[in-house]
Amino acid sequence: MTSMKSLSVEHLLGIKYLKKEDLDLIFETADQFKEVINRPIKKVPSLRDITIANLFFENSTRTKLSFELAEKRLSADVINFSAGQSSVKKGETLIDTVNNILAMKVDIVVMRHSDVGAGVFLSKHVNAKIINAGDGTHEHPTQALLDCYSIREKFGEVKGKKVVILGDVLHSRVALSNIYALKLLGAEVMLCGPTTLIPKYAKSLGVKVSHNLKEALEWADVVNALRVQNERMDVSYFPSTREYAKLFGINKKILSELDKEIVIMHPGPINRGVELTSDVADADQAIILDQVENGVAVRMAVIYLLAQQIKHES
Amino acid sequence: MTSMKSLSVEHLLGIKYLKKEDLDLIFETADQFKEVINRPIKKVPSLRDITIANLFFENSTRTKLSFELAEKRLSADVINFSAGQSSVKKGETLIDTVNNILAMKVDIVVMRHSDVGAGVFLSKHVNAKIINAGDGTHEHPTQALLDCYSIREKFGEVKGKKVVILGDVLHSRVALSNIYALKLLGAEVMLCGPTTLIPKYAKSLGVKVSHNLKEALEWADVVNALRVQNERMDVSYFPSTREYAKLFGINKKILSELDKEIVIMHPGPINRGVELTSDVADADQAIILDQVENGVAVRMAVIYLLAQQIKHES
Amino acid sequence: MTSMKSLSVEHLLGIKYLKKEDLDLIFETADQFKEVINRPIKKVPSLRDITIANLFFENSTRTKLSFELAEKRLSADVINFSAGQSSVKKGETLIDTVNNILAMKVDIVVMRHSDVGAGVFLSKHVNAKIINAGDGTHEHPTQALLDCYSIREKFGEVKGKKVVILGDVLHSRVALSNIYALKLLGAEVMLCGPTTLIPKYAKSLGVKVSHNLKEALEWADVVNALRVQNERMDVSYFPSTREYAKLFGINKKILSELDKEIVIMHPGPINRGVELTSDVADADQAIILDQVENGVAVRMAVIYLLAQQIKHES
Repeated sequence: MTSMKSLSVEHLLGIKYLKKEDLDLIFETADQFKEVINRPIKKVPSLRDITIANLFFENSTRTKLSFELAEKRLSADVINFSAGQSSVKKGETLIDTVNNILAMKVDIVVMRHSDVGAGVFLSKHVNAKIINAGDGTHEHPTQALLDCYSIREKFGEVKGKKVVILGDVLHSRVALSNIYALKLLGAEVMLCGPTTLIPKYAKSLGVKVSHNLKEALEWADVVNALRVQNERMDVSYFPSTREYAKLFGINKKILSELDKEIVIMHPGPINRGVELTSDVADADQAIILDQVENGVAVRMAVIYLLAQQIKHES
Repeated sequence: MTSMKSLSVEHLLGIKYLKKEDLDLIFETADQFKEVINRPIKKVPSLRDITIANLFFENSTRTKLSFELAEKRLSADVINFSAGQSSVKKGETLIDTVNNILAMKVDIVVMRHSDVGAGVFLSKHVNAKIINAGDGTHEHPTQALLDCYSIREKFGEVKGKKVVILGDVLHSRVALSNIYALKLLGAEVMLCGPTTLIPKYAKSLGVKVSHNLKEALEWADVVNALRVQNERMDVSYFPSTREYAKLFGINKKILSELDKEIVIMHPGPINRGVELTSDVADADQAIILDQVENGVAVRMAVIYLLAQQIKHES
Repeated sequence: MTSMKSLSVEHLLGIKYLKKEDLDLIFETADQFKEVINRPIKKVPSLRDITIANLFFENSTRTKLSFELAEKRLSADVINFSAGQSSVKKGETLIDTVNNILAMKVDIVVMRHSDVGAGVFLSKHVNAKIINAGDGTHEHPTQALLDCYSIREKFGEVKGKKVVILGDVLHSRVALSNIYALKLLGAEVMLCGPTTLIPKYAKSLGVKVSHNLKEALEWADVVNALRVQNERMDVSYFPSTREYAKLFGINKKILSELDKEIVIMHPGPINRGVELTSDVADADQAIILDQVENGVAVRMAVIYLLAQQIKHES
């Protein structure tokens, strides 16, 4: 499992900061870990000397669980810190909170925070590897990595694939990280959704835009249906989820009218009957649970590769 | 610690689904684990290849802690998921939540849920061993197993023993699972409590019913005093806890009037002065802390036996 | 790592119960563990046979995290129990809650509780080693141990050093434990703060009192600036935090007017701009993060030394 190659970055703050070679290295390393987690004993002793703190200032189920499992399967020591228990409420600054944790000899911090750029800010002020597990509506790099890894697994490569990112792009950190990663890997990207949910700067990112689901699906090899995040919207961006489902929800009928079978992705949790009907979510062409499984392997790869740098430095 | 025998079931969903042979096998296996947890090093490496997710959609202290310790002492990898952090709030279905967790390669799910039948439902839709750690007011099979194991430990066998289940039978999953287990093992069972807290279908379960504590204790070898669960009652089932204590609480006086010493059990947490006076809770004839200790051994046995099936299948 | 010496106490309930020899033994043991946690592999297998329960009935970030890390680095089995999940809400007594946990074969309980004397009370009623991680406004012995260890590390010894404890002494368990520990080790202690925040019995503890920060700093080798704990004050003890900062906050200006460099300590979390200005908190003369690092080593030492007694007993 030792690699001669190294990431070009010292932290995983966003896909924006990565090179194509970094993604290739992460994917090759994840291939090895995917093999590990499908063995009866799913653990490797690689990171027995590494302590990782999970700092989730925002709630998360699947991402936190996925990171924790990745860390435990690498045999790292894991400590969890969630906002509810936190000194943040007592008026401590983020840097002080994290420096306190680091003084207890923590090597890697996995952080989810509601503020855009929280990871970048932190990486400049503390002495630990930072992995961004979601910063506000900005980036969620490990999600994009696992999405692209799942496309690569399905098709052999990401290059040249036509990927539609569907729905609430405006509030989605998943969308932005995916756009960066897909472009870097040579995919073509189209955003599709109601005008109110597609950011105005979309075209500057080098992507196509469509407001017509049928048109988008006819073009696509893959569609990644984003979650309708009612909890993130402080005003209403569309009349009702029923309207949304009618115009931008994927159902069996619209899929059967295509002259090909496209791959269905979703970062979860699914609102069944909104983004996808139940039969679509459970269809063979949906790789939603593969995405979840690949998430553990990809996160193991990212953590492993950053930890290798710590060993080299010491 | 390898057993040639196997449980007749693939999940532990309720005592209702078990055979007497299953209970015997669980108890014999628990005997071995009880010996283990009384050694200085209380751990065995048996389940290093098993990942267990504890899904508690309802709060729990002792049951969750007991399962966690059982899992850790078997060297399983443990991940905890509680409702507060959960995607359930984001509108995800139970099956999707669990399938997501399983896609991360989880072998066994221990679940507490407020809905009757949640475990059975889940076992039909996901690919993992399910252990029911309490479903609504229905079953709590590991509690009944540890209760019967404690009676067996005290008397040598459960067969022929006269067991009174006292108090709030109506709202108690402990009671129903105990009735099934005790009957299966050949004990005689009497329910005792105010008319409002004994279910109308009681006699169809093949148990005696009494509304007079003194009469019940005179009959009994063992009394299992259920907790008065004010938090589960949306209407009032008796005038006050003071009335309840007067009529159905066990005190030293009522015990001293018997011509024998009966065994006192309680699933905890105790409302001292309500179900039991303090001197009764702390008396030698009370085996309440033995029940807690046996809980870890019995849960190790259940998890170990189900995990053996996973190995055989692979 | 085996020591022939043993603590004179069976629990760590407060500094009040320790002898000078106990502190020396803890510090010498902590020296060894500090070396361990600065190795690449920060773990020793010493306590593989010990199970530790962390019972935090009050919220805590750094103390809980520090204990957890100390426990994990000693290879103990760790279970966490926090008030939110607790049976306490269901009306169970503290002794019943803890006895239930102990029946699951727990060797050491680390407890934070809002009631003064909770640890002492518990130690008399349950069969486990108790470590007081803070009882109300009374004692917080491991904090005092790490503070004195940090002074010893800085100066070689604590004896003869002049230490100012600054600020909200009245509400601080850190202060009382520090006074006991510093006096035991032969330091001179001065309390400094507004009259309303210095307890009336202060002089009976054999310490000096000053209400003038400048005067105190001129006397001091070390100043330990306590946190302004707004959350503990039910009435107002000073006009505003701005007033407090002006009269008792440490800034660069007041430090530069001294004819020496004094050591700055703070138990955290810091209210930057209140107890300390940011430049002071980040100055080289501040050893705040050393305190945090030493906290893990000192807690490892305390746990290790108490656990040695368990082995000797068995």
